[in-house]
Amino acid sequence: MDMLWSGWGDPAKATPLPDTVTGLLRDLLGVRPGSSAPVALGDIDVPPAPLDAVARRALAEAVGDPAYVRTDAETRVRHTRGKSTPDLLRIRAGDIGDLPAAVVLPASHDEVAGVLGVCAAHDLALVPFGGGTSVVGGLAPERRRPFIALDLRRMDRLLALDPLSRTATFQPGLRAPQAEALLAEQGFTLGHFPQSYEWATLGGFAAARSSGQASAGYGRFDEMVLGLTLATPEGTLDAGRAPRSAAGPDLRQLILGSEGAFGVITSVTVRIRPRPQTRRYEGWRFASFEEGAAALRRLAQDGPRPTVLRLSDETETLIGLAQPDALGSPDAGHGTGCMAIAGYEGTARDTAQRREAAAGVLRACGGSYVGEEPGERWAHGRYSAPYLRDALLDAGAFAETLETAAFWSRVPELYASVRDALTASLTEAGTPPLVMCHISHVYENGASLYFTVVCAQGEDPVAHWAPAKRAACEAILAAGGTISHHHGVGTDHRDWYVREAGDLGVAALRAVKRRLDPAGLLNPGVLLPLD
Amino acid sequence: MDMLWSGWGDPAKATPLPDTVTGLLRDLLGVRPGSSAPVALGDIDVPPAPLDAVARRALAEAVGDPAYVRTDAETRVRHTRGKSTPDLLRIRAGDIGDLPAAVVLPASHDEVAGVLGVCAAHDLALVPFGGGTSVVGGLAPERRRPFIALDLRRMDRLLALDPLSRTATFQPGLRAPQAEALLAEQGFTLGHFPQSYEWATLGGFAAARSSGQASAGYGRFDEMVLGLTLATPEGTLDAGRAPRSAAGPDLRQLILGSEGAFGVITSVTVRIRPRPQTRRYEGWRFASFEEGAAALRRLAQDGPRPTVLRLSDETETLIGLAQPDALGSPDAGHGTGCMAIAGYEGTARDTAQRREAAAGVLRACGGSYVGEEPGERWAHGRYSAPYLRDALLDAGAFAETLETAAFWSRVPELYASVRDALTASLTEAGTPPLVMCHISHVYENGASLYFTVVCAQGEDPVAHWAPAKRAACEAILAAGGTISHHHGVGTDHRDWYVREAGDLGVAALRAVKRRLDPAGLLNPGVLLPLD
Repeated sequence: MDMLWSGWGDPAKATPLPDTVTGLLRDLLGVRPGSSAPVALGDIDVPPAPLDAVARRALAEAVGDPAYVRTDAETRVRHTRGKSTPDLLRIRAGDIGDLPAAVVLPASHDEVAGVLGVCAAHDLALVPFGGGTSVVGGLAPERRRPFIALDLRRMDRLLALDPLSRTATFQPGLRAPQAEALLAEQGFTLGHFPQSYEWATLGGFAAARSSGQASAGYGRFDEMVLGLTLATPEGTLDAGRAPRSAAGPDLRQLILGSEGAFGVITSVTVRIRPRPQTRRYEGWRFASFEEGAAALRRLAQDGPRPTVLRLSDETETLIGLAQPDALGSPDAGHGTGCMAIAGYEGTARDTAQRREAAAGVLRACGGSYVGEEPGERWAHGRYSAPYLRDALLDAGAFAETLETAAFWSRVPELYASVRDALTASLTEAGTPPLVMCHISHVYENGASLYFTVVCAQGEDPVAHWAPAKRAACEAILAAGGTISHHHGVGTDHRDWYVREAGDLGVAALRAVKRRLDPAGLLNPGVLLPLD
Repeated sequence: MDMLWSGWGDPAKATPLPDTVTGLLRDLLGVRPGSSAPVALGDIDVPPAPLDAVARRALAEAVGDPAYVRTDAETRVRHTRGKSTPDLLRIRAGDIGDLPAAVVLPASHDEVAGVLGVCAAHDLALVPFGGGTSVVGGLAPERRRPFIALDLRRMDRLLALDPLSRTATFQPGLRAPQAEALLAEQGFTLGHFPQSYEWATLGGFAAARSSGQASAGYGRFDEMVLGLTLATPEGTLDAGRAPRSAAGPDLRQLILGSEGAFGVITSVTVRIRPRPQTRRYEGWRFASFEEGAAALRRLAQDGPRPTVLRLSDETETLIGLAQPDALGSPDAGHGTGCMAIAGYEGTARDTAQRREAAAGVLRACGGSYVGEEPGERWAHGRYSAPYLRDALLDAGAFAETLETAAFWSRVPELYASVRDALTASLTEAGTPPLVMCHISHVYENGASLYFTVVCAQGEDPVAHWAPAKRAACEAILAAGGTISHHHGVGTDHRDWYVREAGDLGVAALRAVKRRLDPAGLLNPGVLLPLD
């Protein structure tokens, strides 16, 4: 199934906002319903594909069938940009400035290599396209020349599963739920559940250095990856002969996070684990974000580690966004303080033991147990926030998220300064926002912070948001955070990424890119600035 | 204190072989005592330093004092090569073919940068020198031009400790025991205990992607590193703003394992942990290597994880090398089957709980508990194998180690084929060897194999060993192993590393090197072949 072209997910799952929320938006944020409905897909005036017949034939040859080189308007619109709020606002308004020339669907590594050859011969840029869920402009390359979107959905097979070593090798275009289903048949799970889970692909997880909601238990995607195959214009790069090695720098970690700028990931070998026998998610309440964060830190540092561990700040708790589908519902466990969710997955015995010990720590750190209901609500709504955003946009509100991470000692300042920067910028622009935050990923040495901003849209909502986003990025760098914990760099974060990685770091990566992609065909301007 | 120039460690700790071992060498391996004593250091004819007065003055200026530019014979000999057996055999014979032109001792990042500038101006190559413990030819660059050894021992400070985030930042030249002592003052440990522990430095651990004996509990060094500063001829590269990030490829993992070829590591930020309250090491016996390996795999995959987990094969168990200090001692717990060591460090409660649960798994997998004595013997002798090697060389025997890692399903074939390759090659050469092996590092998805080879020396012992080493390397690649799990690449493994990383992997790394070190001054020929 294709995702809603103008928003998120399965159109059948769209739900309007409850009246309480509409009232909240109006009374608290001054949101007025406007003419914010998306244009009709058929009304968008799509120019003909800038692709000559020779190039088209060559692409068709590379993928074995002209049917896999698509230039119809709808397919191209559906591959225009990703799913950030500015992306949605633009596409809803019919802005197709980042339209691909064609969408090409290879079925194998060799076909990808063939397509790369055609691109080089015909001076076409190429954007690898998995689930299309980028929220950082990762699918909107600089347009000095036409580009094709390389949609990897046909590369959706489980290539190998080694139950003894607990590894599985997948093609990149497989979506996460299908990967989980294939693993489940053999008793395994990957355990990677980012918010984009229902739509995102394994190749995309690798390219973007994804991190899932159960990272406390299963680790980040970059920690799960044991092997990668990368097709580049200069040939194939295979990385990962052993779980760990001292044979030079870790080439896997050079490919992970390369966001399609170095090549197209054509296979991913990941660590897999036995399917959990039991799952239990529960809620804990803390008096303050600081107190809750200290509890999370203690579990992250001294254990035992829950599988899922998150903490909403006071505002997010009050609004109830800790359980998106219960937003506005009076019985959703909102209230004062900060809601934490602790989830446990594993064998029945391990889950019970970890839960009991972790509960002792949470209690000792000031937490009050508030039952399984908030946990189950969170688990039930864990993938629904992007649907809520569509409804908010429909209602004339603006809603966007951004995230960062830092060492523990930096977290309080990072939290305060990003929140203050967003609030100050949007207030100055005449749309005082609601800024909410949660910690969703914890490490021994630090944590991530995930911010949600809701406000009125302003006259030109994309332009209206830009200064606030810039202010948040500046605040992140100033407070010692990384410009992205799991969304990635794309084009939206590139200017700050360049400052974070430093001149020489960027120069080293550009040297790699130049070697693997000398003509600069791959995702030009994504991750790294153009020469 | 300086290490024994012609061998390992503190000369006061040298111990002769027990008579039983001498007998074993003679009867089993045909080792005959020969004229294998090292030459005297004073008898080596050291040529004058190929360093003109201008370069010498410039180097002295860069490090602030002519006393830190050393060209005396003894200092240069002491910085010639590392501590592989071929290295020792050569230096014992007075072969100083890899002699540095000078030894330079900087005290700060800026001084390192200054020295790099002088090297560029005077066409001198540079080899970063930490503990000097490389066993893969990592300190023996190609000699198209003179090189200086950059001895980092003056850069031995703890720069910062963040108890909340549990991170510590060290200068690179600090030795591991001193780092542990500084951390212990504040209640912390690093937990990195490779066999080279007593002499190796933190910068060396990072450059060589080290892994310690307690890796099951504390992780590999590359997993401990949170931040790095790299001084290069083209400027400074800083990596690591957060524990984890999605902001591009992980630059830390590009520096880790770069073996001085990309730059000089001038600071390392590592994860630290509370000092363990208790330590308990114990022995378990398995009927076969296969059975023991399955037990280790189960603990690595399903837990609970001991802090130390190792398993000697039948030969190593029989000889008693599982406890090097007890070699030849009749009460050392030798015997049939395979000895495993399981060690637990942590709080008293956590240690007891993990131990109990792990013991249940080990027992269920066929293990028999043989008490704490073998564990304590192992712990007591954990750093003494290199001393034993010196004694073996003195006795006219040849002894060397090599190691690899693979996914679990590959481990049995890897084990058999490396052992067979070594045995066949050395037997053919007329010196049938004793080949012993242990698993010393376990992961969810695979394990390392560490081989020890002992045989008679042969006429020209360095040349005699070369074909066996080549055969082992070929067997490793053919069986799907990595050419090094923790020793690194250096010059000894380079030809196989190039095949493991592949043409394009090597090309990507060479592109990085060219960007950071355009004149090719840094460790030329180490890790990557010359252009």
